[in-house]
Amino acid sequence: MTNNTAYAELMAHVRQTEALAKVAERLGWDQETMMPRGGAEQRGEEMAAMEGVLHARRTDGQIAQWLADADPVDAVAAAQLYQIDRSYRRSVKVPGALAQELARVTSVAQGTWAAARAADKVADFLPTLAQVIDLKRQEAACLAEGGDLYDALIDDYEPEATAESLGAMFGRMRPRLVALREAVLGCEAPPALHGHFGQDAQLRLARDLASAFGYDWERGRIDLAVHPFSSGGGDDSRITTRVVESDPFNCIYSTIHEVGHSSYELAIDPDYAMTPLGHGVSMGVHESQSRIYENQIGRGRAFTGWMYGQMVERFGALSVDGPDGFYRAVNRVQPGFIRTEADEVHYNLHIMMRFDLERALIRGDLAVTDLEAAWNDRFAADFGVAVDRPSHGMLQDVHWSVGLFGYFPTYTLGNVYAGCLNKAMRAAVPDVDAALARGDTSGATGWLRETVQRHGGLRKPRDTIAAACGFEPSEGPLLDYLEAKFRDLYRL
Amino acid sequence: MTNNTAYAELMAHVRQTEALAKVAERLGWDQETMMPRGGAEQRGEEMAAMEGVLHARRTDGQIAQWLADADPVDAVAAAQLYQIDRSYRRSVKVPGALAQELARVTSVAQGTWAAARAADKVADFLPTLAQVIDLKRQEAACLAEGGDLYDALIDDYEPEATAESLGAMFGRMRPRLVALREAVLGCEAPPALHGHFGQDAQLRLARDLASAFGYDWERGRIDLAVHPFSSGGGDDSRITTRVVESDPFNCIYSTIHEVGHSSYELAIDPDYAMTPLGHGVSMGVHESQSRIYENQIGRGRAFTGWMYGQMVERFGALSVDGPDGFYRAVNRVQPGFIRTEADEVHYNLHIMMRFDLERALIRGDLAVTDLEAAWNDRFAADFGVAVDRPSHGMLQDVHWSVGLFGYFPTYTLGNVYAGCLNKAMRAAVPDVDAALARGDTSGATGWLRETVQRHGGLRKPRDTIAAACGFEPSEGPLLDYLEAKFRDLYRL
Repeated sequence: MTNNTAYAELMAHVRQTEALAKVAERLGWDQETMMPRGGAEQRGEEMAAMEGVLHARRTDGQIAQWLADADPVDAVAAAQLYQIDRSYRRSVKVPGALAQELARVTSVAQGTWAAARAADKVADFLPTLAQVIDLKRQEAACLAEGGDLYDALIDDYEPEATAESLGAMFGRMRPRLVALREAVLGCEAPPALHGHFGQDAQLRLARDLASAFGYDWERGRIDLAVHPFSSGGGDDSRITTRVVESDPFNCIYSTIHEVGHSSYELAIDPDYAMTPLGHGVSMGVHESQSRIYENQIGRGRAFTGWMYGQMVERFGALSVDGPDGFYRAVNRVQPGFIRTEADEVHYNLHIMMRFDLERALIRGDLAVTDLEAAWNDRFAADFGVAVDRPSHGMLQDVHWSVGLFGYFPTYTLGNVYAGCLNKAMRAAVPDVDAALARGDTSGATGWLRETVQRHGGLRKPRDTIAAACGFEPSEGPLLDYLEAKFRDLYRL
Repeated sequence: MTNNTAYAELMAHVRQTEALAKVAERLGWDQETMMPRGGAEQRGEEMAAMEGVLHARRTDGQIAQWLADADPVDAVAAAQLYQIDRSYRRSVKVPGALAQELARVTSVAQGTWAAARAADKVADFLPTLAQVIDLKRQEAACLAEGGDLYDALIDDYEPEATAESLGAMFGRMRPRLVALREAVLGCEAPPALHGHFGQDAQLRLARDLASAFGYDWERGRIDLAVHPFSSGGGDDSRITTRVVESDPFNCIYSTIHEVGHSSYELAIDPDYAMTPLGHGVSMGVHESQSRIYENQIGRGRAFTGWMYGQMVERFGALSVDGPDGFYRAVNRVQPGFIRTEADEVHYNLHIMMRFDLERALIRGDLAVTDLEAAWNDRFAADFGVAVDRPSHGMLQDVHWSVGLFGYFPTYTLGNVYAGCLNKAMRAAVPDVDAALARGDTSGATGWLRETVQRHGGLRKPRDTIAAACGFEPSEGPLLDYLEAKFRDLYRL
């Protein structure tokens, strides 16, 4: 077989696999947004059947031969082969029956989690969680081949990262975050935003904010779901949001966050569509986009100034004192229970806590029956507040029910990358705050699209950020940004 | 291999295929209800990839051996093997590449049709329609193996039916329908219902009507789409409807019709779930359920009396004269352009026209470039009215764009079966009209559930109806019913 033929045949095989993976992912979207509740068990069978098909295609015996025969003719082909080889080597380690069982169980577990969370009953979720953890440990054992179980799972979301490297970074970040937290909490908190903000008006605002961030409605849509998420890619990437009528920031910042994810997928070079390069390259890089949209852009003084005008126009006079009071309310620091609603100072402390807990669960150092106590003890120690109910504690996040162990640390890695990108973007884009103050994000998002998003999976995760920034990424810029922002806000 | 092992392995294989077929069907639902417009091309690739998987599974070389080794232990197993054998023999005749190309082209064609219909431009649709017809003729040639091309396509929707048998039945029906039409049109038409009926209130009514027909919301949902349809089965069967604010009957009867389809799927014995018996057995039997819900129940004097009260409660005083005037408005006979909105007298004439046109297209006796003229000439001859625009003519229905040739005649077969079932149901269920006059359909729908719906694919289509009725089905009961109903309504 000639080199060209092998590459062409391999890419044709992969292209159909990518199409099927998109179908499976949309099935997940449907489950969380549209599926009638009674369809949950059947959906588990459907998910398992799709996983069976995908696993068989990803472990197809011909792939090894194609990979051996195909020499890359350019950097794009080399990157495709790298990604395909990575996926193949990972997939062949996991038996198809285990992959299918994981798909079935996590599909059903999601509904079990949602019901347990709504009822605030940990006991309703524990047997399911124990089953998911058991299956993930089996999967990790296959992948790790004697190495660390948790590292094997991290690798799915963040290639080249390890618990050790992430833990070391968290260790460097923690003292400065804790010091900042203590300094801020020692000051008087600015007034929060109070009032009633109707669901329909919030959803209209969410749509307009997505538009302000350049979201492509021809290739996307927004719906309500219990847990905000983005899903899909290519020419069909969708987001969800949620509404709390007493707290518009929940919907606003969930929406902007998911628009960041979805915009990344939709900005990838169309030449990479339906190939392994046609996705965000890692969850850390993905989170860098969602978090910079949400925080460094969306929670900045310039953009919140514009948003204040939008809010007044839609909801009438606000309870806060003008655009400055609004900016302070948006960035109010307080030790809340819920990660997704956390301010920028506390956010990474939530992640560090989950990182330690899930690593212990996967390594077998923490029994699932001890998780609630471990969570609550750690929360009290880190946040100085006692968890008042499980939905404010270990039942708050969907991740573990669907088997996402090793995913949480990528949120903080994303914040770190966002800090680097924010520094580079502000050096590269003139007058960015003047534009953001008019609600014009095009300079900021255009720079991200050109330097990060359009490249998809072409470069490795860390290289993607380094190439965009022109410097090696580290936690420094994020911490500098946080200290400067909150010292100014709290007049420290 | 033992008989039991072969049967168990075969059923395990089929069960996963059924799960994947449900995924593919839901992808179709998503395309018509949720998909962002820009996703159309990609969706075609996804549909083709799913069809590739399904075709490979349905033609798996092991199936023939399993079928040879498995002896049925009971009637259910015998029916499963009959259906699997039928599917296998059909699937192996069609090359996988053709099946995939059909899936891809018809997926994209649906959007092309919708756009051409909205723009009222036949020319925008013709190249696509020509491509679909060419592919369907290729598929039919594979299936027919020298026999009639159109019969080969009918067989997909109505096993054991042929163009000849259906054409003969239509020939027997036509004179009595034409005579009834002429008699009715010779009388003064009763007043139509006029007014403005807001979309939100219509959708609330649609939900309440679905509930009145026993629709299971735990396993279903309703959405808006260009073309009303039902989709899925097992524990997840969904319907769509549409709203015209000047004509509430459009939404009301589309909804009841689709509830009939969906209720059939949801009523099938759970033991048959995810097997070939877990579907409606043919489109003719399917239409018998949707049409009896819609017409013999939904358009009857008893139920419309209850519905009149619902309408007044929701929309205030109506333009018609009490429940009797409402009943006459519901059943107003007029030669309209649109099949789905046709009265019961005209409906089958629409079908007979499409039957003749599509048979000529598939047999090669009518060029696609001559279709519009042929449609308009035939419509003028049969209905006495000139088609005023393509969206009222050959662009009105989605079917041909998605390759549904041979499907239309099953609508009239369904009407015929509904006529038989109505006769038997009224003999079996005491006081059915008294219940319907209170909006209580449980006697009627319960009888259909027990006698028809729960059996799924257990019996052959005609046997299903005969077993439910206790007599051999024929067109007589439908024609008797129509003549009695409209002679009374029009005082002939």
